[in-house]
Amino acid sequence: MTISVRFAGMGGQGIIFSGIALARGVSLYEKRGGKDLYAIQTQSYGPEARGGSSKCDVKISESENFYPFVEIPDYLVLMSQPAYERFIDVTNKDTVVVLDEDAVESRPDIEYYDIAATKKAEEIGKRIVANVVMLGAFVEISGIVSKKSIQKALCDVAPKGTESLNKKAFELGTALGKDAINAD
Amino acid sequence: MTISVRFAGMGGQGIIFSGIALARGVSLYEKRGGKDLYAIQTQSYGPEARGGSSKCDVKISESENFYPFVEIPDYLVLMSQPAYERFIDVTNKDTVVVLDEDAVESRPDIEYYDIAATKKAEEIGKRIVANVVMLGAFVEISGIVSKKSIQKALCDVAPKGTESLNKKAFELGTALGKDAINAD
Repeated sequence: MTISVRFAGMGGQGIIFSGIALARGVSLYEKRGGKDLYAIQTQSYGPEARGGSSKCDVKISESENFYPFVEIPDYLVLMSQPAYERFIDVTNKDTVVVLDEDAVESRPDIEYYDIAATKKAEEIGKRIVANVVMLGAFVEISGIVSKKSIQKALCDVAPKGTESLNKKAFELGTALGKDAINAD
Repeated sequence: MTISVRFAGMGGQGIIFSGIALARGVSLYEKRGGKDLYAIQTQSYGPEARGGSSKCDVKISESENFYPFVEIPDYLVLMSQPAYERFIDVTNKDTVVVLDEDAVESRPDIEYYDIAATKKAEEIGKRIVANVVMLGAFVEISGIVSKKSIQKALCDVAPKGTESLNKKAFELGTALGKDAINAD
């Protein structure tokens, strides 16, 4: 069993932060059937990065040795229209898309969930944590990892003094994820 | 031409931060013969991460398509004794090792440079930037990328308000790197 997740958006949106929190949460705090999990987080820097885009892939496995690259992701979390355009065709019919509905205009013809992440982050006065709202929504929708594990990892990687803000943003995200599942 | 760099140490030392700054600096701000460069930063989370260790690999290429994994690194930047023990044998005779001399007790029988990174960081009252001192030393010793490109990237990725601290730590590191080359 391997699960792959691709986060993509603009530079400055905290795309890498989300990937690191997920990989860390899964590998340090999550177990499956009493066994540890493994995760690899990969970030490529090429023409897209030069254009201001950001992408971060996470692959999760029960086995220590696994092909670490994400070709077609199982989950695609999108936070900008250019990221949508770049990556929406690198999917298959089983890929589940989670969109920041305020930041992405287009909608795909595969399963997707609209999350008002930027709007919700603005409501709490911190647009910068829209990525964490999206991460919470993704965790709720995918169900691949416990919320508790990711919250612990968030606490580890959040800059000092921002732990409670990140916790709040994550919880708002899981609530939005739950709403999105129910609306589906 | 590909160049591979492995950063390893303890969790909390900012190992990933160094890798991200290098990959970003190379790919966004550096050119070779007028052409862009590409970089991939990879982090694996497994038993080591659970033991508190941290590792980040960066591979740099002139070509967009390259095997992204670091097997034997060209450069190995070490910030803890457990990281030394784990990775010192995953080298060949051409691997260049850059050590935080206060954090690593052992010395290898291949080319290496001692850098008083933790000590220097403590002198400016911020042990937390020892990783950036090490990054500066590595950039000076390797000569694979301009200091200017990495400083720009550091400014991009440093938390708000810490830009000048990071710039200073980086400059202290390049000076230590220069001394280490001259002492060699």
